[in-house]
Amino acid sequence: MSELHRLLRPRSVAVVGASADPSKTTGRPIGYLLRHGFGGEVWPVNPRVAELSGLRCYPDIASLPGGPDVAIVLLGPERAGQAVRELAERGTGAAIVLAGGYAEAGGEGADRQQALREAAGTMRLLGPNTIGLVNLADRIVLSASGALEIGELPPGRISLVSQSGGILGAVLSRAAAQGIGFARLVSTGNEADLEVADFLDLLAEDPGTDVIALYLEGLRRPEAFRAAARKAAAAGKPVVAFKVGRSEAGAAAAISHTGALSGADRLYDALFRQLGVIRAERFSDLLDIPAALASGRRAAGRRVAVLTSTGGAGALLADSFGLAGFELPPPDAATATRISALTGEAAAANPLDLTLAGLKPEVFRGALTALLESPSYDAVTVVVGSSALAQPRLAADAIAACQTGQEKPVLAYVSPHAPAILAALNAQRIPATAAPEAAAAMLASLARPLAAAAPEAAQAESQPGLPSGPLDEAESKALFARFGVPAVREETARTPAEAAEAARRIGGRVVLKARSRHLSHKTEAGGVRVGLTSEEVEAEAERMLARVAAATGRAPDGLLVQEQVSGGVEMILGLRRDPHLGTALLVGLGGVAAEVFGDTALRVLPLSRTEAEAMLAELRGRRLLEGFRGTPQADIPALLDAMMRFAAMGEALGPRLLEAEINPLFVLPRGAGVRAADGLAVLA
Amino acid sequence: MSELHRLLRPRSVAVVGASADPSKTTGRPIGYLLRHGFGGEVWPVNPRVAELSGLRCYPDIASLPGGPDVAIVLLGPERAGQAVRELAERGTGAAIVLAGGYAEAGGEGADRQQALREAAGTMRLLGPNTIGLVNLADRIVLSASGALEIGELPPGRISLVSQSGGILGAVLSRAAAQGIGFARLVSTGNEADLEVADFLDLLAEDPGTDVIALYLEGLRRPEAFRAAARKAAAAGKPVVAFKVGRSEAGAAAAISHTGALSGADRLYDALFRQLGVIRAERFSDLLDIPAALASGRRAAGRRVAVLTSTGGAGALLADSFGLAGFELPPPDAATATRISALTGEAAAANPLDLTLAGLKPEVFRGALTALLESPSYDAVTVVVGSSALAQPRLAADAIAACQTGQEKPVLAYVSPHAPAILAALNAQRIPATAAPEAAAAMLASLARPLAAAAPEAAQAESQPGLPSGPLDEAESKALFARFGVPAVREETARTPAEAAEAARRIGGRVVLKARSRHLSHKTEAGGVRVGLTSEEVEAEAERMLARVAAATGRAPDGLLVQEQVSGGVEMILGLRRDPHLGTALLVGLGGVAAEVFGDTALRVLPLSRTEAEAMLAELRGRRLLEGFRGTPQADIPALLDAMMRFAAMGEALGPRLLEAEINPLFVLPRGAGVRAADGLAVLA
Repeated sequence: MSELHRLLRPRSVAVVGASADPSKTTGRPIGYLLRHGFGGEVWPVNPRVAELSGLRCYPDIASLPGGPDVAIVLLGPERAGQAVRELAERGTGAAIVLAGGYAEAGGEGADRQQALREAAGTMRLLGPNTIGLVNLADRIVLSASGALEIGELPPGRISLVSQSGGILGAVLSRAAAQGIGFARLVSTGNEADLEVADFLDLLAEDPGTDVIALYLEGLRRPEAFRAAARKAAAAGKPVVAFKVGRSEAGAAAAISHTGALSGADRLYDALFRQLGVIRAERFSDLLDIPAALASGRRAAGRRVAVLTSTGGAGALLADSFGLAGFELPPPDAATATRISALTGEAAAANPLDLTLAGLKPEVFRGALTALLESPSYDAVTVVVGSSALAQPRLAADAIAACQTGQEKPVLAYVSPHAPAILAALNAQRIPATAAPEAAAAMLASLARPLAAAAPEAAQAESQPGLPSGPLDEAESKALFARFGVPAVREETARTPAEAAEAARRIGGRVVLKARSRHLSHKTEAGGVRVGLTSEEVEAEAERMLARVAAATGRAPDGLLVQEQVSGGVEMILGLRRDPHLGTALLVGLGGVAAEVFGDTALRVLPLSRTEAEAMLAELRGRRLLEGFRGTPQADIPALLDAMMRFAAMGEALGPRLLEAEINPLFVLPRGAGVRAADGLAVLA
Repeated sequence: MSELHRLLRPRSVAVVGASADPSKTTGRPIGYLLRHGFGGEVWPVNPRVAELSGLRCYPDIASLPGGPDVAIVLLGPERAGQAVRELAERGTGAAIVLAGGYAEAGGEGADRQQALREAAGTMRLLGPNTIGLVNLADRIVLSASGALEIGELPPGRISLVSQSGGILGAVLSRAAAQGIGFARLVSTGNEADLEVADFLDLLAEDPGTDVIALYLEGLRRPEAFRAAARKAAAAGKPVVAFKVGRSEAGAAAAISHTGALSGADRLYDALFRQLGVIRAERFSDLLDIPAALASGRRAAGRRVAVLTSTGGAGALLADSFGLAGFELPPPDAATATRISALTGEAAAANPLDLTLAGLKPEVFRGALTALLESPSYDAVTVVVGSSALAQPRLAADAIAACQTGQEKPVLAYVSPHAPAILAALNAQRIPATAAPEAAAAMLASLARPLAAAAPEAAQAESQPGLPSGPLDEAESKALFARFGVPAVREETARTPAEAAEAARRIGGRVVLKARSRHLSHKTEAGGVRVGLTSEEVEAEAERMLARVAAATGRAPDGLLVQEQVSGGVEMILGLRRDPHLGTALLVGLGGVAAEVFGDTALRVLPLSRTEAEAMLAELRGRRLLEGFRGTPQADIPALLDAMMRFAAMGEALGPRLLEAEINPLFVLPRGAGVRAADGLAVLA
């Protein structure tokens, strides 16, 4: 048994610093262990009492009958380190350190955390600054969370890993009120040793877990997280993540809370997308979406029927579904006929409003069964109205009876305030919510295609002969060309006369540019002229060299003469190294679209071609590539090739590449390929 | 007393078709009237019983002791019409008809509704297909809503007008559970007579109402709604509207639900914005935002302090606020010193995490008072954590004590499931929520500047001499010029030779276009050539006439020669007549920005200059007007003039103008004005 499995299902638990006073945080864990039905041995450690909750109390760690599977350390930061050292020496499996005052406190706290980690040696450590671990499915509670005061905590098949202990408690108490059960919940706190990726990996192979929910403030080891997420995907277990730090204020608060490393939030978005992790938008989604997924049902498409006996709520729900991209087709003729036979009314609309007839159980069941059996729908949503208030289990029982033997998902929307109805529905694994927006998010998660397995990261290769610092345009494009991204035809020139010769060789109108590693804004410095004839080049080059030298205070390194491309769609391709999350690829329409409208798509490397295609599909400006207002369709396959090659360059260069950009990349009409017309790269 | 006041506060209520069986819908209204404490006379009408709930029962309307202030008609559609006629004859103030089967059922139903309306004569009619009216503040319940089964319905100063009876019930039951009180609630149903605008007008002058919430499926009389919304704004009463029909599916469902007229949803957005109506995004906002506004407190700016004793929830809330554009500055030195003196810890961060010290009442109160008194904050939000579960009133009492004598808003975010805490907070008029996103929406409503009064609509003027149908480009621009929107310099020409002469007069490079009322896509038909010298014009004009004739099957009406404008920002200005909501003005960046990125702003006429400025501020592409990457700042005042003049044209032409567009409108550098370079208009 690995240490993590031993932590999840200990047979012996020592509680170091346990108090006999249940009103204190240190008085809670033993009470919770016993009350929630722990079947193993519990060893309180407290030199001041002989007995605690009817258990023999040990004066110190040395007196324990052996090394426990788990020790809960309730001491303050000044004494926890010594206890952890002694526990490690006794062969303890894992210690859970609840106290704060470590890395999240900054300065000395970080040193103290390092010392704690060293004291643990090979013993695993959960925390510090954690609320602990709750294995509800096995009735093993290793936590001080006040949420465990709740008597009835329904077990289920969702597991939660939270970087915040308070949030774990909030989710647990909200779940219990909604009748949503959990298998395991763990708060990782400051993650001195065990962290989110470790538990994600554990839950991916945990037979008691079907769906994994994550509350994240930042990832410490993105690579380990990717591997664990891939493992969960391979096991068919959906992962739903809520991550704070979407705003600057939130990111700052998250960092100060657990000292978590951050990285740009947009990169997390990209990473989640690539790994098939569903990002919860609203906090309540972190509970609602896993509850929907835990039903085990999936929608084969986006056609949903809404069955209601109250028209207003039906319209409200239809609007939410419509906004989320669902279709609400009317019932097919056979289904309409079946339902009409029950109600005596036409059944032509969706939402299907049964009005008063819907309150008769046989009519409701018949209509629901007809919709579930209809080939026109992928899912059914039932509106529960005020009339159900008197009999809270009625809707749940009726839906449960109808969905037996059917594979389609049935969701319930509860219109009045009716917590008992919500809980009864969820308890029967009928995903239920009182928010129309949540109903749409839940259904969307069930209608989501499974993510393709993300590719493994490649090793960065040694790239001999590359300088450090910024490369000039010609050097940058030469580097890109080494990886297979073609540039416009161009020649470098040292003098105006050489430039004129180059222009004659290239032919037609040309673009003349100043070359300099120190010139990141060529246009503003007067270092770009377009549409020149070869006759004009020499004189213009003279003027340009003088102009740029005056603007920048140093003479340019030379000149660049390029063929002038026209008729393509201008795109931007970028690579940027995030010191924490790795290198990301950006693609967008060139010109003002990327900068003013933020119309770009982003992925963390490695990139699969499927993901590259998904990036283009995300762009609102993709219409321009597809042939817009009479322009020819652009060479999208060549653009995808360029994206893959640019991404391969990013992988091969690894941390050496800080930044690279092609802007514009001309995507020519289909069959004619792409051309990088400008580029820059910055190497470490 | 007007009929509407008589409906709101009747002294006598007849209940026609009342049943003695409380399990039936027809058995409810008398029970609710009596149970909720109606003090006036109740007259049941039912020929089959002599007494009902201890009240004398009348066999028919003719036997009633007089014309009641209000009659609740519980008969089915086949008998309701006759009862309404008899009630009108008796001098009844208003009848409330609950039955459905009218306009919402289509066909015969619409005829039946018309007959019902005629039967009512001058008597006011609420419904049909309504759940009725609840005047909670005066304990007068004229409704059959199952939500009234709830024993405790807290009165308050929010009033609701809902086009759906089911939604009224849902809001009422959810509000009661959250401790949010209402003054009046009315469901307008099919609105055969009384409709949303009537009640909005009534509530604007109702001394019992401070905040008005609307649940809308569509507006029947937009002009009356505008007037009533202006009246509410003038009375300082915020109006919060949730409107379905944002998606096609939702719009279809809403129309079939109450037969409401629709109009484009984006125009409702525009209209609400202009009228200062706050549009609720999520359904729960329809309750949460009014509850926040009913506190009577307003935030002078967007700087918010978050006070917490649980770090995770603090970070979560900070992230929501950050996303909503709030700032979370750290405490100023004086405030930090005050708080440090209480906790013995540094108080440098925001969220301010008091950790365990925050559980001591004196520390919590001291810190909250310090934040409320700090000049660094406009509002304070308090996180209520699990530790409060044992004493649900503690937080509410403490916050209430601190906010006395302070004007800043205090919001509460409740982290665990704790309905009793939420209700206790709201009952003390401390806006409280369990959703971090709702906290941000609530605070945003409190930090919102008051809307400027919307201008009154002008009368359309008779415009003699205008043809019907589409105008060609030159005619369109001539029309726009009559209203003061300048066009590029241009001349019309009948022949290629005339075109060449015109080009010489204009000078420089010119644009040549074919003129035709039947040519809406000139470019695609080869009817536009740019950058021509005057020497090139004649030959090109010959080719163009032939080309366009071949493409369209008819000879163009002539030619147009224009100066070629360069160096400005291309915008699009549009007017479009919505048959229901009136004429709307659209402004956006030209080129692909409007079409591909949907970067446009919209307002329903009439338009104030302040609103025109707000439209430009909404555009993401406004950066291009402000001088982007070295281009000069555009002539924004001239653009605003053009918008106002184009809008004035829309008002003057009224229903005669179906559509008008200037695309592009060149906005030249500051001081140089604007030029319409292309235009079209379609007249009725």
